[in-house]
Amino acid sequence: MRIGILGTGTVGQTIGTRLVQLGHDVKLGSRGATNEKAATWVTGAGEHATQGTFADAGVFGEIVFNCTPGMVALAALNEAGAENLKGKIVVDVSNPLDLSHGFPPTLSVCNTDSVGEQIQRAFPDVKVVKALNTMTAPLMVNPAALPGDHEVFLCGNDADAKTRVTELLRSFGWQGVLDLGDITAARGMEMILPIWLRLMGTLKTPKFNFHIARG
Amino acid sequence: MRIGILGTGTVGQTIGTRLVQLGHDVKLGSRGATNEKAATWVTGAGEHATQGTFADAGVFGEIVFNCTPGMVALAALNEAGAENLKGKIVVDVSNPLDLSHGFPPTLSVCNTDSVGEQIQRAFPDVKVVKALNTMTAPLMVNPAALPGDHEVFLCGNDADAKTRVTELLRSFGWQGVLDLGDITAARGMEMILPIWLRLMGTLKTPKFNFHIARG
Repeated sequence: MRIGILGTGTVGQTIGTRLVQLGHDVKLGSRGATNEKAATWVTGAGEHATQGTFADAGVFGEIVFNCTPGMVALAALNEAGAENLKGKIVVDVSNPLDLSHGFPPTLSVCNTDSVGEQIQRAFPDVKVVKALNTMTAPLMVNPAALPGDHEVFLCGNDADAKTRVTELLRSFGWQGVLDLGDITAARGMEMILPIWLRLMGTLKTPKFNFHIARG
Repeated sequence: MRIGILGTGTVGQTIGTRLVQLGHDVKLGSRGATNEKAATWVTGAGEHATQGTFADAGVFGEIVFNCTPGMVALAALNEAGAENLKGKIVVDVSNPLDLSHGFPPTLSVCNTDSVGEQIQRAFPDVKVVKALNTMTAPLMVNPAALPGDHEVFLCGNDADAKTRVTELLRSFGWQGVLDLGDITAARGMEMILPIWLRLMGTLKTPKFNFHIARG
């Protein structure tokens, strides 16, 4: 499959590398057409990896991952272009972490709204699926790195889109995919970040994930 | 030990009953001196169970549990009385769920503040420990009802207070007690509620809890 990725940070690169390894063609998009981080990634990731602008990635992808920070997600998606994204699935991995006041960050949107919902409202012809925002990047694409059961949460308004994203997640190794319903569940998925950050400080590692223990 | 409980709802009654079973003397406090729910509870819970006003419970308890809803917690604690609570541990179990706009509730405070912090600020001579707000009442006092590992989070500014509350939690059966640091961690603990509510809807039961899977 052709997959576009918006964002050249750790999350975008990690997901991109895994998708290439799984046989997909991946274009990493950034603000400028020639991005140094993306160029390095392309060199390392092989012939099925390319880079371009946000718009290039938007045109290229049958599915597009938003791996930009939540506070700039709408700007990046606007550059990707509503016409280019029309009818496509956008997997929103972002979190609205506001680091302008230092650490720990607050959320730039929460409680009555979320980045996932903002994107769905701004791009009504896109099928937004929120996923993978609740764990560190290496675990997103390789859940088996952590022993025992643990889950990835997912939400969105389009059932078929969630099925396709679930298939991709299963190809990453995810067995526990918990569908939390429509895109408004993105609030809860993003609001879990403050306790995630505290847990990282307590456990002194980002290598952990949530498991929902059930009866 | 003598323990005061503020709030006569399911959480207060469930914790009160368990504490009586464990040999403690418990006074359930409410707005009025004669509360029908509290009276029924006293009848069922045995001779070590009594009821009274918030102030009565505040005077009575060596440790005081706040089991009122988060939006009225400060009012209840004010009635319990700063002088009565001075130097004592207050275990804050509350969540700032605002149901005035229907279901799902939003949080009346979050992101840059929390009920736990509000209480600590308003009652500087009290040792606030936030705990038990992230699971359904029956699991709070009987974690063994759920198979496998799962945890209770805890935070607060006073190390000794957290040690004493941890001992109480262990007497309930908790093996995994995760200390998330100072009282500002209450933000993350309270902001987990939106995803908890979604999970309850997805799983169609409140009988679940968070487990932190680690490497």
